[in-house]
Amino acid sequence: MSTGTNQTIVKGIVPPMVTPLLSDNLSLDVESVNTLLEHLIAGGVHGVFILGTTGESTSLSYLTRELLINETCRIVNGRIPVFVGVTDTSIEESLHLAHIAHQAGATAVVAAPPFYYGLGQEELYKYYWSLASQLPLPLFLYNMPSHTKVNIDRGTVLRLAEHPNIIGLKDSSANTVYYQSLCYMLKFKEDFSLLVGPEEITSETILMGGSGGVNGGANMFPKLYVELYNATIARDFDRIRVLQNLVMDVATKIYTIGSYGSSYLKGLKSALSVLGLIQPYIAPPFNTFEEKEMSQVRDSVNRIKKEIEAILG
Amino acid sequence: MSTGTNQTIVKGIVPPMVTPLLSDNLSLDVESVNTLLEHLIAGGVHGVFILGTTGESTSLSYLTRELLINETCRIVNGRIPVFVGVTDTSIEESLHLAHIAHQAGATAVVAAPPFYYGLGQEELYKYYWSLASQLPLPLFLYNMPSHTKVNIDRGTVLRLAEHPNIIGLKDSSANTVYYQSLCYMLKFKEDFSLLVGPEEITSETILMGGSGGVNGGANMFPKLYVELYNATIARDFDRIRVLQNLVMDVATKIYTIGSYGSSYLKGLKSALSVLGLIQPYIAPPFNTFEEKEMSQVRDSVNRIKKEIEAILG
Amino acid sequence: MSTGTNQTIVKGIVPPMVTPLLSDNLSLDVESVNTLLEHLIAGGVHGVFILGTTGESTSLSYLTRELLINETCRIVNGRIPVFVGVTDTSIEESLHLAHIAHQAGATAVVAAPPFYYGLGQEELYKYYWSLASQLPLPLFLYNMPSHTKVNIDRGTVLRLAEHPNIIGLKDSSANTVYYQSLCYMLKFKEDFSLLVGPEEITSETILMGGSGGVNGGANMFPKLYVELYNATIARDFDRIRVLQNLVMDVATKIYTIGSYGSSYLKGLKSALSVLGLIQPYIAPPFNTFEEKEMSQVRDSVNRIKKEIEAILG
Amino acid sequence: MSTGTNQTIVKGIVPPMVTPLLSDNLSLDVESVNTLLEHLIAGGVHGVFILGTTGESTSLSYLTRELLINETCRIVNGRIPVFVGVTDTSIEESLHLAHIAHQAGATAVVAAPPFYYGLGQEELYKYYWSLASQLPLPLFLYNMPSHTKVNIDRGTVLRLAEHPNIIGLKDSSANTVYYQSLCYMLKFKEDFSLLVGPEEITSETILMGGSGGVNGGANMFPKLYVELYNATIARDFDRIRVLQNLVMDVATKIYTIGSYGSSYLKGLKSALSVLGLIQPYIAPPFNTFEEKEMSQVRDSVNRIKKEIEAILG
Repeated sequence: MSTGTNQTIVKGIVPPMVTPLLSDNLSLDVESVNTLLEHLIAGGVHGVFILGTTGESTSLSYLTRELLINETCRIVNGRIPVFVGVTDTSIEESLHLAHIAHQAGATAVVAAPPFYYGLGQEELYKYYWSLASQLPLPLFLYNMPSHTKVNIDRGTVLRLAEHPNIIGLKDSSANTVYYQSLCYMLKFKEDFSLLVGPEEITSETILMGGSGGVNGGANMFPKLYVELYNATIARDFDRIRVLQNLVMDVATKIYTIGSYGSSYLKGLKSALSVLGLIQPYIAPPFNTFEEKEMSQVRDSVNRIKKEIEAILG
Repeated sequence: MSTGTNQTIVKGIVPPMVTPLLSDNLSLDVESVNTLLEHLIAGGVHGVFILGTTGESTSLSYLTRELLINETCRIVNGRIPVFVGVTDTSIEESLHLAHIAHQAGATAVVAAPPFYYGLGQEELYKYYWSLASQLPLPLFLYNMPSHTKVNIDRGTVLRLAEHPNIIGLKDSSANTVYYQSLCYMLKFKEDFSLLVGPEEITSETILMGGSGGVNGGANMFPKLYVELYNATIARDFDRIRVLQNLVMDVATKIYTIGSYGSSYLKGLKSALSVLGLIQPYIAPPFNTFEEKEMSQVRDSVNRIKKEIEAILG
Repeated sequence: MSTGTNQTIVKGIVPPMVTPLLSDNLSLDVESVNTLLEHLIAGGVHGVFILGTTGESTSLSYLTRELLINETCRIVNGRIPVFVGVTDTSIEESLHLAHIAHQAGATAVVAAPPFYYGLGQEELYKYYWSLASQLPLPLFLYNMPSHTKVNIDRGTVLRLAEHPNIIGLKDSSANTVYYQSLCYMLKFKEDFSLLVGPEEITSETILMGGSGGVNGGANMFPKLYVELYNATIARDFDRIRVLQNLVMDVATKIYTIGSYGSSYLKGLKSALSVLGLIQPYIAPPFNTFEEKEMSQVRDSVNRIKKEIEAILG
Repeated sequence: MSTGTNQTIVKGIVPPMVTPLLSDNLSLDVESVNTLLEHLIAGGVHGVFILGTTGESTSLSYLTRELLINETCRIVNGRIPVFVGVTDTSIEESLHLAHIAHQAGATAVVAAPPFYYGLGQEELYKYYWSLASQLPLPLFLYNMPSHTKVNIDRGTVLRLAEHPNIIGLKDSSANTVYYQSLCYMLKFKEDFSLLVGPEEITSETILMGGSGGVNGGANMFPKLYVELYNATIARDFDRIRVLQNLVMDVATKIYTIGSYGSSYLKGLKSALSVLGLIQPYIAPPFNTFEEKEMSQVRDSVNRIKKEIEAILG
């Protein structure tokens, strides 16, 4: 995989890294950042995306975000591209984070729309154009309507793709009609990446022309998602079926415990603690699972881990 | 393709037929029903679905719905399966339509959730179970959350799939995370069909295990969608790419004129009138396009038709 | 109270009557219709509104709706105005019901927007204008965005208020910014009624210029709501406080049992059965409360009834 | 008016102050802060609320927010209570702002729910309880579901009202059924304030037991809103009618220009610049009105100003 402005395209599996925290639920667990990054790199991922939704970016203080940017770039040390989320309601704070990322040697930044006020498409367009023009790094758009209350409509994406500093879009809408439309409308722009968030649909979107997946489950089992990506590129449907079933097993067993939208994040961090990669702490407004839920996670993770090892070695 | 309770599975392209109307915007244009059905059958579709969202079912009087059921079954005369929408807010009216369909020789009925009150999942489950138990024909669930305000959650689908008279689900949510979850969770149930609504994603969902598409565009160009289905089954990716581009061309040019959610229905009926298959009339609460929009439709339809003929002959 | 086109204005308490059903949950309990109507008239209500959301209109067959219209008009026999809900997704069925209502001697009809497709404001405007022009009776607009998915925006109401056959609006949005805007913008139109749905806010909206309330609780305790109306008109704030507290007691204790949006309807019908006015049956897609919930209703209703009698005699 | 923990209650008109900006659309216009605050105090307001939705808090950098807190407290110098918005997605940043506010001498802080992730009610409850327990100042809850995606349900408010450091709630939902329920359920808690956001409904909510209004229009015409408050307290309905009409005139003419949700904020800041109180600049993601819209604002403001002066002198 390679990355760059107007040259190459971001392809493959780029995990949205969780942010390991200490037991105060607020401070960065730098040691686990190291453990997790080495785990990801060993698993063959094509890049790493920090400070996204999975990374609890908006729940962290700015000092913690800065520390994570610096530590990540230091540890990765150029081995894989580093993408840094700078989503914020204040353009000044987004730009500040982007400058930290630039100085630290990150590859590009990622920004969802400002998410407090409701925005019209024209307002969204002007905001992104202005942001991209001021950024010291290339920008990935990040479509996340369930959290930001606004969809970056395809007409708006098309206009923004004209900006020399906007290099792609990560779509977490789960709406593949939207995604297919973007693939179709942007098919002439070979250097524009279209990444998809939900791991359940990474394979199918790549089959139809997508560039890759920003898959939370790759924090746990990077090799599984990388192998599914490879099988998909190779159109090896027998292998796709086997690996897709494992990916669906993860999604339906680990992300669905508890009754709230936060079950994905709580399940993922709990599973990573079961795997010994991080501690289970999570920043407010969320709380770590109680033992009852944790024990459900433990059973699923251990079972799935064995199944994955049986297949991937 | 074949259909039946607990025996065979519905597969392929099943167009949601538009309802041809006369110039009062209310009465059935029986002659065009005949024209359209012959066009679809000649195009090789695997079935036809009348009285769906595309068929303006809820905008029609009950007498018109009954007439359409009887005329369709008479004209089709067993050549392809006929699926009849019985979606209604009153269970008595749904059952009444189902009995008409049964007497006329239809294959199965299709029902979206009652759509006036907001429903909880348990209420939805009980409703569907009760409906299926009273129906004289097999039932397809129809997930259409944008119109019914409720998603048939996957847990609910799983429980309903246990009913011997429920044979499949048509999903028009465009949410393929949901769809993939259903494919995964129901993969042991080989006789349960999972059809998808939006034509933009028919190919990708079939690649991952889906059964087929209920695609509005097949009213215009049935052969295009059938050939895309065949290419998908054959995993002929060169052909998929060519045909998918045509499908996307239809979707992005013909369904997006005007500023309302009704642009799909208005565009489709207008295009069918350009093709000489129906008259352009549409039932309240909608109105036929004015000449300005109609002329946009005309240009797109004629251009796309030529491109399709160049490829499909 | 009096009613009429361009002459007088609908004012006061107009209960949205529940539809009493027999134990098949579908057939009209004509005897209870009589009991309930006499109860309402004895309670001094200023009119009755049948076949609204509280009346489960959309869950009933058309034959049942027709029967209810005829029985209600026969029993009321001109003693109070009768308003008939004709909300439907099919304009032909709305018109058919309106003709039944006209023949039976009803005062006016009430229609929420067609509620299957999403509508734009211009589409909504044209629909209502066309409907009003074809109706044999005056029309009340009915704003119910939670159920119909569309708000009748104030600009649209303003335009529709120009139609000679549109005599008012019932607003069930609970959004009093919207309601105050309508009062303000329509203050020059003295013959246009603005009724409010939720009983919790009937008093405050009347204080600011509203015309009255379409309050579900008046099925149970018509006198309470009528007396609150009278106290409000008289600006007797001591009495308003006492009566408003009782109204809030009803709303917070009887309509909030169970976890779904249907708790209002289930609670109301259950309470009416406790009071001996109807049987507890409710049409699909809903179900009557189980004994556990019913016993909660029983305790609250009996307590509140005593408190009301202690104050109103 | 007076304020304090468990002693007195916040009552009256507390304008959500706009944040005056310089022509870079980012930096604080300290001079205009002074002008605006003196204008508000001269108008008789009962407090001032900075860094709310109207104050563009989330669009400002943290340094700008800190500067505004310090300047406001310095200028006000104890003449009226100062409420400081600390709404944030990061609890650490909320606490940091609260400490700045405490040191500067502010009266209390105000916090809407964290607004990036979707929250369940139990998560919301725990978050607020934890926040209130760590704050150096009393806390006002701020219900703003259109922006935060979550309603603070009345059961949650009731539980939070038990916290000794939570002294009230500002409701900007415009849902007065919700508001009336809170008034009713909390009527025993005399030291808990219930303020309402939208100025259109301040009078009616106070008539029914509310404590006051956080009204954006009071930035322009503080005396108008204070006089409406006084007339409401005095139940002088003739005066209420006259003043309410002026308030509605402001809301329907100045806040409705342009097609986006931002029309309120753009209209208000533009109007304040017409009145010479601030410069018209607005922070990203929004933009100042173009001359076309600005001229509409100018006409309305000048006309309304004259009408207010004719009545209030």
